Amino acid sequence: MNDVVLLGVDWGSSSVRAFAIANDGAAAAVKRADDGVFTGSGPFGARLRGHLGDWLERWPHAPVLLCGMVGSDRGWVHAPYVAAPAGLSELAGALVPAPFECSARIVPGVSFTSGETCEVLRGEETLLMGLGERASGTLVCLPGTHSKWADLADGRIAGFRTYMTGELRALLLSQGALATTITQIDSHDAFLAGLAAAREDAAPTRALFQARARRLLGRLAPQHTASFVSGILIGAEIACEAGAAAVLLAARGDLAAAYSAALREARIAVSAADPEPLAASGLLRIAVAAGLVRADSM
Amino acid sequence: MNDVVLLGVDWGSSSVRAFAIANDGAAAAVKRADDGVFTGSGPFGARLRGHLGDWLERWPHAPVLLCGMVGSDRGWVHAPYVAAPAGLSELAGALVPAPFECSARIVPGVSFTSGETCEVLRGEETLLMGLGERASGTLVCLPGTHSKWADLADGRIAGFRTYMTGELRALLLSQGALATTITQIDSHDAFLAGLAAAREDAAPTRALFQARARRLLGRLAPQHTASFVSGILIGAEIACEAGAAAVLLAARGDLAAAYSAALREARIAVSAADPEPLAASGLLRIAVAAGLVRADSM
Repeated sequence: MNDVVLLGVDWGSSSVRAFAIANDGAAAAVKRADDGVFTGSGPFGARLRGHLGDWLERWPHAPVLLCGMVGSDRGWVHAPYVAAPAGLSELAGALVPAPFECSARIVPGVSFTSGETCEVLRGEETLLMGLGERASGTLVCLPGTHSKWADLADGRIAGFRTYMTGELRALLLSQGALATTITQIDSHDAFLAGLAAAREDAAPTRALFQARARRLLGRLAPQHTASFVSGILIGAEIACEAGAAAVLLAARGDLAAAYSAALREARIAVSAADPEPLAASGLLRIAVAAGLVRADSM
Repeated sequence: MNDVVLLGVDWGSSSVRAFAIANDGAAAAVKRADDGVFTGSGPFGARLRGHLGDWLERWPHAPVLLCGMVGSDRGWVHAPYVAAPAGLSELAGALVPAPFECSARIVPGVSFTSGETCEVLRGEETLLMGLGERASGTLVCLPGTHSKWADLADGRIAGFRTYMTGELRALLLSQGALATTITQIDSHDAFLAGLAAAREDAAPTRALFQARARRLLGRLAPQHTASFVSGILIGAEIACEAGAAAVLLAARGDLAAAYSAALREARIAVSAADPEPLAASGLLRIAVAAGLVRADSM
């Protein structure tokens, strides 16, 4: 069995995943919990100890590296953004120590500005570094609450764009004119109709009202509202990225299926990667670049 | 003094306005209350009696005509949509009686379909009829929770489009990544920056994240978030209507000022109309077309 050389933690807004990472970059063990940076409570040190549990005694010499919202200005310790273009050396050079017995460190997020446009990400930089050699000249889509589309060049994050797809979907389906108390059933046809509405209407702020108007006029079944709204929001996102020939999609489960279908509809070639192993691999690559883990242990 | 010939009520989702309407279409008296169709409670008949108050004894022969969400399928009595194109005769021919002592009637909403696209409005049809002779060949913008842009031809509603501008603004500023507890201050510069962001980004779902990223990178003052978000959402709406040369804007107060500024930025000529007198005038025109009020009393 490979040695565990790093205890890595991807600590996001609403959940936390801890990885006991072996010297080949794979996770020898994974723990998942709902204790998000903003959804959980209590001192971060005690919470981290709980998440790592017996790993701390089992692998006492493995350093601890954290990424995600834990390093935001409302997190545990603020790890200020590194400006893009940013790769392993820029991220490794800007790790911030966290007050934890085995001197944990936190990976910074990345910022990007172009004219007036500002972009920030935090957590995704680590997944992107996990792509390793696959990362050159690639467009990567990381869907979620705030979907990120990142351009990678020479192993560095060259630039990226954010779409509020997941947040808008959750807000609109839970309250207001589009919300319904009827149990939702996935419908591929309604999803495709949403994609078509997004293509037809320049503004999703118009296309979204279709979820109400079509329901009122009997053209959309109330139980298919969520699929239709997903189609509109994902379609609006992909329409802005329509110049792409190929995309690497870092997603799993229903989200991966929905984005894959939408990308195929837009005639963009898709390859997929599971984000969880990318996080573990990215944490190890950054730890090695920072000298926390010896390269010859890999 | 002109005789009061009609008691008109514009009863929307979140408020109610009652008009004692004189034979020239002007409101001799107006009562306003927060008792919206969905925000108030109790039997509609009793609530209507309360809103009309002593008007019922003072003008016992004046018929009562209602418009707005009171006629929706979740309102008092359902007044099904009339299909566009719809003008005075179509609306007057589809009034629905309400169970009220002096035989009140409810104005129906209007639906519009074009290919797969569906549109509905309810309440705005009455304001649009209030435009009378101004209504031919005009594009009318009625901003609000669900902004409507209506094409009028020969005094009839030929078609219209809906943008969820006001609803999205309220949702995004009250919760989620863009919300802030800092008291908001109007900023014309931040509003203009929002318009520019909407022009730059094809999807407002991308431009909206700018409200967070610019704040985090020190490019947007937190107290100007609401102005910036307004600029993005209004800008996205106007970008879809950019082919227009001139617009009649039915709005008042801050909303009228914001849309006027955005339309001027887009080089679209604006004329403005106060929506409240339009509602009173529209109710009288529909009542006359339906024979509820004699034309020679006007």
